[in-house]
Amino acid sequence: MTGLRERKKWETRRRISDVATGMFLARGFDDVTIAEVAEAAGVSRMTVFNYFPRKEDLFLDRSAETVVDFRQAISERGLGEPVAEALRRLHLGWLAERHPMSGVVEHGKAFWKVVDETPALRARTLEQQDELRAELVDMLRAEGFDETGATLGAGFVAAAHGTVYDTARLRIMAGDKVTKVHAGQKAVVERVFDALADALRGLESH
Amino acid sequence: MTGLRERKKWETRRRISDVATGMFLARGFDDVTIAEVAEAAGVSRMTVFNYFPRKEDLFLDRSAETVVDFRQAISERGLGEPVAEALRRLHLGWLAERHPMSGVVEHGKAFWKVVDETPALRARTLEQQDELRAELVDMLRAEGFDETGATLGAGFVAAAHGTVYDTARLRIMAGDKVTKVHAGQKAVVERVFDALADALRGLESH
Repeated sequence: MTGLRERKKWETRRRISDVATGMFLARGFDDVTIAEVAEAAGVSRMTVFNYFPRKEDLFLDRSAETVVDFRQAISERGLGEPVAEALRRLHLGWLAERHPMSGVVEHGKAFWKVVDETPALRARTLEQQDELRAELVDMLRAEGFDETGATLGAGFVAAAHGTVYDTARLRIMAGDKVTKVHAGQKAVVERVFDALADALRGLESH
Repeated sequence: MTGLRERKKWETRRRISDVATGMFLARGFDDVTIAEVAEAAGVSRMTVFNYFPRKEDLFLDRSAETVVDFRQAISERGLGEPVAEALRRLHLGWLAERHPMSGVVEHGKAFWKVVDETPALRARTLEQQDELRAELVDMLRAEGFDETGATLGAGFVAAAHGTVYDTARLRIMAGDKVTKVHAGQKAVVERVFDALADALRGLESH
């Protein structure tokens, strides 16, 4: 993410999605129109469409940034550092700042309830997971994994990421305090990325 | 799968979906109605609905059997046998009989083209993958994996299965002869399940 212009773009994108998220949480996903989001955010409908061609992505808005974060963590890791270690660091960083992709989401219960109740959002969630996996295949290919190794490795990485996220999500949905979940997640991240390191070891050396 | 009655059910189910698949391949998924499928298969519309509450599952019809096969392979494996080895055997068996879930699908090109061109089928494919993963979490929990281990292990298993399937699918889509792909797949299965064995080793011992 380089340059002022680029950063301003991401800030505008974030502002629109924050406004939209608030409206969806208050009134439900299906009952809020793009026109209303545009008005509340003080931009044109066309601007909303430019940033979010799909209404679903106004709510599930972190996916594009997540791909950028994964790509950066992998491509900019230290010489000879295993991919799993770079991704462990990424996830520990997310956890430290309570980033939405850590799964430790402050108002997660309300957020995930809307997803669960909205078929279009559930479907989009699965699509985004599939898109992330496809991007990971590309990233691992660029790191020298062969075709089968890149496909399998991407699936392993997606499983690790999904497990960390879901562990936090399910505990928060079950009523555990966010602070308590946060305190327990470091151990989960360490265990999951230990297993990922084992899983990728043979693939990476190919 | 026990008993004559149960077997007859699966046979009826298979016959309906085979007829439907032929019609979808010939005329496209959206242009064939359930009423037409029922008439061609010589059953009532209600019978079709009883077996396939969703039209998409008439085409993507192997998912339910796949879950049964996974469950059987895991729960009936030898004493002390690692889960990965039971699943390696399952996949080698599928490959030997050119089972649809091996990915070596005789008329795969025409089949996957319909899926690619039909958003409802693409979405259902992702849902089925997610359902399989959820079932695998259950199966691994039943084998003594703890919560995090079962979630991660299920993701690893799903990644292995998906990689084997996709390796065959992409080669067949790219124009490779099915016989040639079949000949090369044993090595893919062995490599993928070697990696899965590494991936699950630490989780299973918990």
